[in-house]
Amino acid sequence: MRHILLAVVFFLCVSANLVAQGPNIAPQNDLVSQYQETVDRIIEAALADSAAYERLELLGDLFGHRLSGSESLEDAIDWILEEMEEDGFHNVRGQPVMVPHWVRGNESATLLSPREEELVMLGLGGSIATPSEGITAKVMVVNSFEELESRAAEAEGNIVLFNVPFASYGETVQYRVNGANEASRAGAVASLIRSVGPFGMQTPHTGTMRYADDVDPIPHAALTIEGAELLQRLVDRGETPVVNLKMESHFEEDALSRNIIAELPGVAHPEEIVVLGGHIDSWDVGTGMMDDGGGCVVAWEAVRILKELGLQPRRTIRVVMWTNEENGLRGANVYRDSLIAQGTLQNHVFAVESDGGVFEPVGFGFGGSDEAFAMVQPISELLEPVLAEGYEESRGVTRGGGGADIGPIMREGVQGAGLRTANERYFWYHHTPADTIEVLDPDDVQRCVAAMAVLAYVVADMPGRLPFTPPGGE
Amino acid sequence: MRHILLAVVFFLCVSANLVAQGPNIAPQNDLVSQYQETVDRIIEAALADSAAYERLELLGDLFGHRLSGSESLEDAIDWILEEMEEDGFHNVRGQPVMVPHWVRGNESATLLSPREEELVMLGLGGSIATPSEGITAKVMVVNSFEELESRAAEAEGNIVLFNVPFASYGETVQYRVNGANEASRAGAVASLIRSVGPFGMQTPHTGTMRYADDVDPIPHAALTIEGAELLQRLVDRGETPVVNLKMESHFEEDALSRNIIAELPGVAHPEEIVVLGGHIDSWDVGTGMMDDGGGCVVAWEAVRILKELGLQPRRTIRVVMWTNEENGLRGANVYRDSLIAQGTLQNHVFAVESDGGVFEPVGFGFGGSDEAFAMVQPISELLEPVLAEGYEESRGVTRGGGGADIGPIMREGVQGAGLRTANERYFWYHHTPADTIEVLDPDDVQRCVAAMAVLAYVVADMPGRLPFTPPGGE
Repeated sequence: MRHILLAVVFFLCVSANLVAQGPNIAPQNDLVSQYQETVDRIIEAALADSAAYERLELLGDLFGHRLSGSESLEDAIDWILEEMEEDGFHNVRGQPVMVPHWVRGNESATLLSPREEELVMLGLGGSIATPSEGITAKVMVVNSFEELESRAAEAEGNIVLFNVPFASYGETVQYRVNGANEASRAGAVASLIRSVGPFGMQTPHTGTMRYADDVDPIPHAALTIEGAELLQRLVDRGETPVVNLKMESHFEEDALSRNIIAELPGVAHPEEIVVLGGHIDSWDVGTGMMDDGGGCVVAWEAVRILKELGLQPRRTIRVVMWTNEENGLRGANVYRDSLIAQGTLQNHVFAVESDGGVFEPVGFGFGGSDEAFAMVQPISELLEPVLAEGYEESRGVTRGGGGADIGPIMREGVQGAGLRTANERYFWYHHTPADTIEVLDPDDVQRCVAAMAVLAYVVADMPGRLPFTPPGGE
Repeated sequence: MRHILLAVVFFLCVSANLVAQGPNIAPQNDLVSQYQETVDRIIEAALADSAAYERLELLGDLFGHRLSGSESLEDAIDWILEEMEEDGFHNVRGQPVMVPHWVRGNESATLLSPREEELVMLGLGGSIATPSEGITAKVMVVNSFEELESRAAEAEGNIVLFNVPFASYGETVQYRVNGANEASRAGAVASLIRSVGPFGMQTPHTGTMRYADDVDPIPHAALTIEGAELLQRLVDRGETPVVNLKMESHFEEDALSRNIIAELPGVAHPEEIVVLGGHIDSWDVGTGMMDDGGGCVVAWEAVRILKELGLQPRRTIRVVMWTNEENGLRGANVYRDSLIAQGTLQNHVFAVESDGGVFEPVGFGFGGSDEAFAMVQPISELLEPVLAEGYEESRGVTRGGGGADIGPIMREGVQGAGLRTANERYFWYHHTPADTIEVLDPDDVQRCVAAMAVLAYVVADMPGRLPFTPPGGE
C-alpha cells in the first residue's frame, strides 16, 4: 500500500512537472481528438471571412476616436448594439456605467529660449489645465525618479522633464502615471515626460495619469522622443531651456456610457459563461483601431462565426466590450460589481481579453489556476494552424496573462487569459494619432478571430467546467 | 603587324569590358598602391573623430530649420562661416544668392462631413493661400493623372485628392510638383496629395510644387497616408467627404542668402578644383539633419580632416554648401553662372554631392564620362573599409549618379558623383517634422566623412586630372 501511494505521488509530480514545462511535452488530452473536426470548420470559416477587418474599419471611419464621455463613443456603442441585434446575438444590451469625462481642449508646448520652436506634445489624460497664458518656466531634465530626488532642490519653480527612454511599458509608464506627483513634491510647476514608446516620427503618446491625494496637482504632458532629446541636449550643453506650456484640459461631469453585452446561449449550462472581449473606449487621438477596437471586433466576430456555423456550445459564450478601460476602468468594475450583486460571479467559467493589438496570433497567456491551466493547455495543438511562425516560448496556451478589463473578475476567482500576438510594433502606435486601421492587416485580424473562436468554443463546450478559484482557496 | 594590331584591339576590348562590368573585376590601377597608405591615415582619422555628428547636432539645435528666406538659415550660414574660419579653411566666403521667400503661415484641413476630424497636413512649398475662411468643398479622390483626365467633368468646383501610393520618389513626386496644375485644368478649387513616402505615423511630407504659366493657381497641400486613405474609403463607400482647407502660405520679397564656399588650396594646380558639398537650406519642418545638413557637414569635415592630417593635394578641394536647393535651386545656378562668367568652369575637375542622407556609405554613383569613370573607378578598392555590408550592385564607385546642386555644372561638362548610402528609410523622414538628428548614427556619419575625404583627396591629388567634357564633345 505504501508503495502504491508513493507511486501515485511520483506520477502526480511528473505530471505536474510536464504541465509546468509548457505545450511541447504536455500530456495528450482527448480534447484534441474530440474537437479537431469542429475546430477545422471554425478556422476555415474564420479565415474565409473578411468581416472583422471591415467592421473595424467602419468603426473607425464612422465614429473616429472613442474617448470616455465623448459623443463618438456612445454613437459607436449604439451602432455596435444595432449590428449585434442584426447578427442575431441574444441578450444584446448596454450595461450603464458612469465614466469620467476628461476633455483635452487646446494645448501647446513652445520652446522660447535659447530659440523658439513649437514642441509636438499631447497632454496626459487626467491632467489639469494651465492658466490661460500658460506656464512659462525653465526646464529641469532628469532621467529617473532617483535623479529627481537627489536634485530635488533644483526643481522649485521649474518644469521637470522626465527624459526616460523606453525600457518596458510597465517600467517606463511609471513616469506618465506618477511623474506629476513626484515633480510636484519637488516643487515643480509642471511636468513633462518623454513619450512612452520605443520609436517615433515626432509622434507623441498620450495615456492616463493620476494625482496622489497629498500633492498639489500640476499640469502633465508628453513630448515626443525628439523633443525630449532636444531639451536634454540643450541642458547637457549648459543652456537653460525655457518652455511655455499651455493646456485647457479639464474634467466635466461624469457621463453615462455602457458596457456592450451580447450572447450565444449555451445548450446544456446556459448559466455558465465564457466571456470574451476587449474595451470599446479609446484615447482621443487616432481611431483606437489597435487599442482596442480590434480586440472588441475579433471577440464579436469569433462568436458571430460560431453562430453562423450553427455551433452551440454547452455553456454560454458572452461578448463584452467594456467601456472606460483607458482612464478609469469603470466598465470592468461595474461588470464585476453587478455579478457579485447578482451572486453569479462563480458562473463565469473563463474570461478572455484581447488588448494587445490584433496582429498575427501567437497564443494565449493564461492567468488562472494550475488545475484550470492543465484543462486548457491542450487547446494549444488545436490553435496551431493560425499561429505565427516562431515564438517557441509563448506559442499556444502558456502561463502568464490576462487583461485590464478581466482583471477585476480574475482577482475574484474567474479563470482568465489574454490573446498574445506578434505585436513588436505595438508601442510604436499605442495612444498616438497613428493608431489607425493602417496598422493592422486583414489576414492577421481574421486569424485572431479564429484563435478567439477556437479557444472560446472548446472551453464553453468541454465536458468539465474550469474551476472558480476565489482568493484564499475554495 | 596585322596580328599585333588585332591583339591590341582585342586587349582594348577586354579592358573596356572589364571596366564596364564594375568594381569587382576592374583592372588594377597603380592608384591603389600609390594612395593606400595615405587613405589608411585618412580613414583612421575620420573614424576616430566625432566632430561631424556633433557639428550636425549643433546646427540643428542652435538654428532649427533653414528654409530659404528665413533668419534661421542666414544665422546658420553665419555660424558655419565663422567655424570654417576657425578651422583654418582658406577663402572662406558667402556667395550672394537671391532666394525665394515662401512663408507657410497657419494651415489646416478639416473633414466636415460625414463626420468632423482634423486631418494632419502640410501645405506644399510654393502654394498660394486660400481665402481666410478657407475653401470648403467636396473631395474627389483619384489614383492617377489618367483617372483625373478620364473623370475631369466631376472635378469642377471640388477639391481633388491624388491618393497615389509611393512607388519611387521620381514617379510619385509628380503629383506633388504638378498635381495643382492638373487639378486646376480640370476645374478643381484646390488639390491635395497623399504624402510622398512609403511609411508614416500620421506623418505629413512637404516639398516643392510649381504652377504652370497657363493655369489658374489653386492651393495645394499634402495629407498623411492615413488621412488620404480615410477619404478614399469614404468615397469608396459612396460617401461624399467635405473638407475645409485653410492656408495662409504666400511668397514675400526674394531674400538675400549665400552659398558657403571654403577651400583647402592645391599645391601644384591650385586653380583646378574638386568641389564637394550638399545644400544648406532645408524645409521648414524638422531640422533638415538628413536633408541635407548631414551632406554639408560630411563635406566640411572631410576637408577639415585632410587639413588636420597635413595632406595638401595637388589640386584645390573646395567645400560648397549651396543655398535654396529645396525650392528654387538658385544657389546651384548662381554658382554655375559665376564660373561661366569668370571663364573658370573647365577648371572644375570633379564635383561630389551628398544629398541622400549620411547613413552607412555604400559608395558613389558616378555621372560623368567613360574616360573619367575609368580613372576614378579604382578608388572603389580604397573605399572598401568604410562601406556597408552587402550592396554588391552599387559598392564603391559605380555608374549613375550626381546631385541636384552639382547638376548645373555637370550638364556643362564637369565630372560628378553622388554619395550613396544605406538609406532605405530615407523617404520615411524626407521633408517631414521627423527629419531630426535622431535619424542618424554617429558612426555612420563619420564613415561618410571618411568616404568623402578619400574620394576627394585621391581625385584632387592623382597625376592626371579628370577631363572636362562639355555637351557636344570637346
